[in-house]
Amino acid sequence: MKITLDDQGRVKLGRMECAVVVLVFLSAVTFSLETLPDLSPRFRRGLAVFEVFSVFCFTGEYAVRLMYARPRRAYAFSFFGWVDLLAILPFFLSLGFDLRAIRLFRLFRIFRLFKLTKYVKGMNRLRQSFQMVREELFLFFFASGIVIYLLAMGIYHFEHQAQPDVFRSVFDGIWWAVCTLTTVGYGDAYPVTLAGRMFTVVILLTGLGVVAVPTGLISSALSRIRDDEQRQEMSG
Amino acid sequence: MKITLDDQGRVKLGRMECAVVVLVFLSAVTFSLETLPDLSPRFRRGLAVFEVFSVFCFTGEYAVRLMYARPRRAYAFSFFGWVDLLAILPFFLSLGFDLRAIRLFRLFRIFRLFKLTKYVKGMNRLRQSFQMVREELFLFFFASGIVIYLLAMGIYHFEHQAQPDVFRSVFDGIWWAVCTLTTVGYGDAYPVTLAGRMFTVVILLTGLGVVAVPTGLISSALSRIRDDEQRQEMSG
Amino acid sequence: MKITLDDQGRVKLGRMECAVVVLVFLSAVTFSLETLPDLSPRFRRGLAVFEVFSVFCFTGEYAVRLMYARPRRAYAFSFFGWVDLLAILPFFLSLGFDLRAIRLFRLFRIFRLFKLTKYVKGMNRLRQSFQMVREELFLFFFASGIVIYLLAMGIYHFEHQAQPDVFRSVFDGIWWAVCTLTTVGYGDAYPVTLAGRMFTVVILLTGLGVVAVPTGLISSALSRIRDDEQRQEMSG
Amino acid sequence: MKITLDDQGRVKLGRMECAVVVLVFLSAVTFSLETLPDLSPRFRRGLAVFEVFSVFCFTGEYAVRLMYARPRRAYAFSFFGWVDLLAILPFFLSLGFDLRAIRLFRLFRIFRLFKLTKYVKGMNRLRQSFQMVREELFLFFFASGIVIYLLAMGIYHFEHQAQPDVFRSVFDGIWWAVCTLTTVGYGDAYPVTLAGRMFTVVILLTGLGVVAVPTGLISSALSRIRDDEQRQEMSG
Repeated sequence: MKITLDDQGRVKLGRMECAVVVLVFLSAVTFSLETLPDLSPRFRRGLAVFEVFSVFCFTGEYAVRLMYARPRRAYAFSFFGWVDLLAILPFFLSLGFDLRAIRLFRLFRIFRLFKLTKYVKGMNRLRQSFQMVREELFLFFFASGIVIYLLAMGIYHFEHQAQPDVFRSVFDGIWWAVCTLTTVGYGDAYPVTLAGRMFTVVILLTGLGVVAVPTGLISSALSRIRDDEQRQEMSG
Repeated sequence: MKITLDDQGRVKLGRMECAVVVLVFLSAVTFSLETLPDLSPRFRRGLAVFEVFSVFCFTGEYAVRLMYARPRRAYAFSFFGWVDLLAILPFFLSLGFDLRAIRLFRLFRIFRLFKLTKYVKGMNRLRQSFQMVREELFLFFFASGIVIYLLAMGIYHFEHQAQPDVFRSVFDGIWWAVCTLTTVGYGDAYPVTLAGRMFTVVILLTGLGVVAVPTGLISSALSRIRDDEQRQEMSG
Repeated sequence: MKITLDDQGRVKLGRMECAVVVLVFLSAVTFSLETLPDLSPRFRRGLAVFEVFSVFCFTGEYAVRLMYARPRRAYAFSFFGWVDLLAILPFFLSLGFDLRAIRLFRLFRIFRLFKLTKYVKGMNRLRQSFQMVREELFLFFFASGIVIYLLAMGIYHFEHQAQPDVFRSVFDGIWWAVCTLTTVGYGDAYPVTLAGRMFTVVILLTGLGVVAVPTGLISSALSRIRDDEQRQEMSG
Repeated sequence: MKITLDDQGRVKLGRMECAVVVLVFLSAVTFSLETLPDLSPRFRRGLAVFEVFSVFCFTGEYAVRLMYARPRRAYAFSFFGWVDLLAILPFFLSLGFDLRAIRLFRLFRIFRLFKLTKYVKGMNRLRQSFQMVREELFLFFFASGIVIYLLAMGIYHFEHQAQPDVFRSVFDGIWWAVCTLTTVGYGDAYPVTLAGRMFTVVILLTGLGVVAVPTGLISSALSRIRDDEQRQEMSG
């Protein structure tokens, strides 16, 4: 095992990094398998053993990282320091308590997945493009919020009388508005009155872009940043 | 409280602006809460008190703005002048009448939300990009209208016989066409006959862009305008 | 009424053009109203009278255009010549026959709507952008066809046993594939078996772009053509 | 029949290529027709005869290609060599065995369709654009995987208690997450609890782009490559 520090002072564990990635993947799979309703007791025991093994490994990794990090506090209080800690903490906490009550904590095990992001290069370009269109993104999310609220108010007004069980309050309207504007359209709620339908048609045709434009903004910002990089490489 | 006029003669209220934004947000939340079916009478009374308080504040704001605006009529008949007025008028109108009959007016309370747009900078870029692709947007909305009408006529023709309750008239067809072309697809209406399905498949694959292209136009116009601004800053 | 010929030899009818646009719109609305199930006999008679009146106007327009066009055959056999003829022909054909049998012809009345496109300028830019990405569009439509066929074959194989009523043949699979790849998702057909769902998940995540990319191609081609025009105007 | 080798040593069969394309199309259609439940025995026999005929043709084509290819192994082990072989193999394999057991192999007949891609020029541009945005595509598919897993875990946690039949395990959650993020929204599974809905709203509004951005990346890469080609043609 080779232990080095990268140029930002983060511990790199050489070949071990790969093993951790594999373990994180396996851990995600086993956590999914655990939720299957009809598992044989033997298979379930196998999953539990693997769980103990993986927590053991992650604990060891956390200890090594903490030991070699300079300064130590920089790692402990960094984003990935917290993720690494939260990936193992729920297991130890659940030892002393009733398992069912603490089940909610186990959800934090999914934080382990975030560790994978450490291993992927090139996130920089994506971060840059987000920064480039930050203001427009904010504006569109803000506009989305307003459009969704207006839609929710409108549909509650038009449909509450006709479908009191479906549109019980404005909050049901918000759920419907989000499902409609993102074009998911589950079909659990939809307008049935003439006024409600006309309202929906007008809003859909004019307001659909409010949710869809941000996607286009990010993708065009990404291509621009890639172009700029290429031009700099060619001229530099 | 500091009162100034911006370069377009609009009244700016200094620190009060922030308070108004918060009040508009709270007002939107309370209006949503009011529609919840199972509220305790005490909580409902609290919401009513807050309603009176917020209308009092908005009225005061309206008065201050009206007083300091030069010329006064410019504010009173401006877009935000109307919004500010409509945000408070329904409350006063409902005092003398039966509340249930005038309930529809209360929908105008959502106009308060529009006041938020005053406080956001950078809308200019968005407006510019809309103006840049104005003609294409009109063309595509026009084409959307025609495609939706043709779809509605076609589906009514193909499906009316098979599903007389679902496709009662061309207007049901319009509702279906809008839900389909925007890819919402609630599932409350869909073709079941072979002819209707073949018709839908052909139209979907060729006509989907009619509704989706405008979104792409706006996002690419936005990135172009941002690029032009950056180039001017760098060269200027 | 002023009658002129534009530079391509087409008859222009001056102020009458506007009247025709209004008439086409009204005609589209009345045709929709006719399909409403619960109309009073009097209203229905009014619609019939308007129908006769509009056909009378369109016939007059057709005669004027035919008379003044040079050469006459160029108009008679042009696209809009056919549309103008088909817009009035069904009415005259239905006089001598049983109305119910010929009802299908009345669908051609919606061709009247196409006449509207004559009055809109700026379609050129759109046509150019289509020509610009012609090859890519063909490739993507071709690829869409293959992906949809493979999806249909796959889902039929995986789901026919489990849902023989929903996926009766590959053609039901095609309907499901189109509704899924365009993300409409009515919910009248969806996989329920594990294999079918895994198949759908893989195809959805990799093949969604096959249907969505053409939209992006057209919108970016449109912005490019607009840019080129602007540059030519500035330099020219 | 003219037999030539293209510059990469692949056998070109002159006019026969067209015949093969037509045969592949017809073969795809007949395979679909075969799955129709209510076919007359005579029609079914006709389909079987056509099947024998098409396999005979494809076998002949395979033999010719194999004979003339230099070196022979290059064709036999190339991608299209395998496709050509798999397009005819299932037929011969099924002769000696029980037909029903080997039916699964017949699915490979759809490989015939892949042969069509050989005949289409211009795929190069598309391949280039994929290569151009390879890294971003990988990142986004990776991020999609994580977002879908987190969504599945979250929705299972929030909805399992309320809808144990719909969200039986995390795998049902994955199915729901894919259907939701791609905005297909069949409506066979959707959250009903307040927590589940709030979770879905937040994830939908922030994570929708994870699945949609790759489409925008490919289309903007495609337009860039076309631009570069045009500029080279103009300057060269």
